[in-house]
Amino acid sequence: MKKSRLHSPHLLAIKGMLPEDIEIIFQAARNFKGILQGQIKKVPSLRDATIVNLFFENSTRTRISFELAEKRLSADIINFSASTSSVSKGETLLDTVNNILAMKVDMVVIRHPNPGAAHFLSRKVDANIINAGDGTHEHPTQGLLDCFSLVEKFGTLKGLKVAIIGDILHSRVALSNVYALKILGAEVRVCGPKTLIPRYYEATGAEVSYDFEDTLRWADAVNMLRIQLERQELEYVPSIREYCLQYQLNEEILEKTGKSPVILHPGPINRGVEITSGVADSKNSLILSQVENGVAIRMAVLYLLGAGE
Amino acid sequence: MKKSRLHSPHLLAIKGMLPEDIEIIFQAARNFKGILQGQIKKVPSLRDATIVNLFFENSTRTRISFELAEKRLSADIINFSASTSSVSKGETLLDTVNNILAMKVDMVVIRHPNPGAAHFLSRKVDANIINAGDGTHEHPTQGLLDCFSLVEKFGTLKGLKVAIIGDILHSRVALSNVYALKILGAEVRVCGPKTLIPRYYEATGAEVSYDFEDTLRWADAVNMLRIQLERQELEYVPSIREYCLQYQLNEEILEKTGKSPVILHPGPINRGVEITSGVADSKNSLILSQVENGVAIRMAVLYLLGAGE
Amino acid sequence: MKKSRLHSPHLLAIKGMLPEDIEIIFQAARNFKGILQGQIKKVPSLRDATIVNLFFENSTRTRISFELAEKRLSADIINFSASTSSVSKGETLLDTVNNILAMKVDMVVIRHPNPGAAHFLSRKVDANIINAGDGTHEHPTQGLLDCFSLVEKFGTLKGLKVAIIGDILHSRVALSNVYALKILGAEVRVCGPKTLIPRYYEATGAEVSYDFEDTLRWADAVNMLRIQLERQELEYVPSIREYCLQYQLNEEILEKTGKSPVILHPGPINRGVEITSGVADSKNSLILSQVENGVAIRMAVLYLLGAGE
Repeated sequence: MKKSRLHSPHLLAIKGMLPEDIEIIFQAARNFKGILQGQIKKVPSLRDATIVNLFFENSTRTRISFELAEKRLSADIINFSASTSSVSKGETLLDTVNNILAMKVDMVVIRHPNPGAAHFLSRKVDANIINAGDGTHEHPTQGLLDCFSLVEKFGTLKGLKVAIIGDILHSRVALSNVYALKILGAEVRVCGPKTLIPRYYEATGAEVSYDFEDTLRWADAVNMLRIQLERQELEYVPSIREYCLQYQLNEEILEKTGKSPVILHPGPINRGVEITSGVADSKNSLILSQVENGVAIRMAVLYLLGAGE
Repeated sequence: MKKSRLHSPHLLAIKGMLPEDIEIIFQAARNFKGILQGQIKKVPSLRDATIVNLFFENSTRTRISFELAEKRLSADIINFSASTSSVSKGETLLDTVNNILAMKVDMVVIRHPNPGAAHFLSRKVDANIINAGDGTHEHPTQGLLDCFSLVEKFGTLKGLKVAIIGDILHSRVALSNVYALKILGAEVRVCGPKTLIPRYYEATGAEVSYDFEDTLRWADAVNMLRIQLERQELEYVPSIREYCLQYQLNEEILEKTGKSPVILHPGPINRGVEITSGVADSKNSLILSQVENGVAIRMAVLYLLGAGE
Repeated sequence: MKKSRLHSPHLLAIKGMLPEDIEIIFQAARNFKGILQGQIKKVPSLRDATIVNLFFENSTRTRISFELAEKRLSADIINFSASTSSVSKGETLLDTVNNILAMKVDMVVIRHPNPGAAHFLSRKVDANIINAGDGTHEHPTQGLLDCFSLVEKFGTLKGLKVAIIGDILHSRVALSNVYALKILGAEVRVCGPKTLIPRYYEATGAEVSYDFEDTLRWADAVNMLRIQLERQELEYVPSIREYCLQYQLNEEILEKTGKSPVILHPGPINRGVEITSGVADSKNSLILSQVENGVAIRMAVLYLLGAGE
């Protein structure tokens, strides 16, 4: 492993990150974003590095975003997905990763259903570990890219009022956002049905609200979480229809509150469920900027951890 | 998007293409074929481009052919297949593609089960769209490579008699071939069971025949479509055995008609179904040339649309 | 095809290989291993070659190992797996491969469930064929990397006593190991339940034993095969528990025999089944060296067959 330019050789979680490390990442992301908008989108920074993308959960956008970031840094890439792997043959996670590292791999991007999987690996193996989502715990690059998109819009997060709406209970995006926003000085509120906001959120420094309308009146920006129709949320709300009546971001409620907050969404969007099409595509929406910034943020993280000094 | 060297920034369908654009593609394909047959098969033409292969239907040969063409043009490639994608999470096609494009992708090669999917995208997004098959509508690069293979063999298509045999109803290969052959001056006949030739074929300028023997006596070249055992054709013919008795290209019928037409097949071949092994491997068969030309044609299309001037 | 630097343009099996070819491979592997341990792990040797990885069986570690070897030789790579392929559409293996080769592919790495698949191809097509496992027949690069790991440890295999333990009947790893070890001058014993050692093993020159304890007293090195829980072995032993009681390599049996043989395992390991965790991770274990050497051996084979003179 080369020497990281951040305080850690890994990116495992936002919790505990130093504000200056986040600033360094944002500065590098700004540079990479400039490169991505130019004609030649590729730099040779990681041309001597081999990166394995270890995805134990299905993912399209996060995997593609990391893969593009890696390609534009000129890294060699190995993709590994659980469905076609020895994992189904009863191999342990540590054996799987040690085997891959024995092939001289420098960096591991891991998505895993178990909270703590990335942490566990980082204590055991000699490679930079980047957490691309570990269960309901954290998704740090998403937290970074959401904050980066807000910084682009507002200049600073100091004193900015940001609300995260929806299924807070199952969302690693929410947790990484709350930590990143607090580190950067924002005021944060989480809002959703009582059944979908866990008690421990009070310890994060975020306010908790169950009142969407009041939250909209309060917020400068709202991050609308996806209702994950394929997951277990449905046990926690009476029905999708009733969820939408209370927590859908639509033209009516925006008009009623008289506010036009900036809108974030981690995607993929369920149009007509947690957000209407018109609002998702409105001029206040940063949704596509988030996607664009995702590649720049991931380039920045990979570069700062893996390119050496 | 850089300026296309063709009249359109996209390749969506053969219908409506200008003959001069087809000629430019063939000329470029000839150059690329020369390169592919040499020692160094790679050129740097698209080294600054990122191409996404968006396959919403399974495909081996078309995907591999595009992927090789892209690699030999030095493009960066992202592969996306529907089975592992957010599509199953209810995302719209447009959102999926917009998300990918927000990551600064220059070209999209799309295969989709819905006719018109490529057209739809081309009106909405800022990237070169290449249709790699949209339902039963068109498969333009297949039409181009089949015609290119015939031009290599005969010098010109002007006045050449070409028959397309089999399941015309479900075949995007047939439709793209008919349009390309007509544009280039060939006489075209489609031939198969009545249930498998749709009425609208008369409007394409192709003759329609249900008589295979007569068609063989007429044709200089025959394009034998695959009976797609996994699809719905079986509802349209009494049985595979009876289909073969009437429309299989075999040694007996060739001897009976006394003709030796040039043979095309888009693959994969069902040996012993629509064509016998002996005929598929005979000296009149262009089948493997088609595959080789497929890479050259796709390099030509990608290069002309995406490399700029 | 360029001229191979070995006596054959293919690597189909260890059986029949010349000792000097194995020596040349080992020498090249030593060089590549040095490169892999340095900062820049990539060489341009195959930058003009296109390699297809044709995997008709699921595989993680072998596929990734080949893919990394290919990338570090700068080859262009096409991955093809049976599950997403035209194979399910009834295409023959030969048609599949001929189609891919018509796209100007230079080398084919093939894993296939049928013994002889690689041999069959090598007689039919114009490309270097590397057998990455053909049914229960051979897995030659595994045999080479296991022997290479032993040579690194012991200097020479001449007179070395090596035992292969477990399900010999279904193991291509066992067969390739026996042949390679015999060619290089080792004494070889296979050991396992009677039902899992086929009669023809006597013809290979290997001793046969059903007594694990006696074999451990005899051996300088043991290669512990994986009990493949997902396969049919279970019909051949009363139960996994009884198999473990007789053939598990654990601390107790090592203490009882007073021997400390060097330990190999082709992976993935079933910890607590054929080997205990403590033994697998002990200082006598070469397991992770095998994985590392796998990439170097595969680079050597690909380079010697495909880079020309």
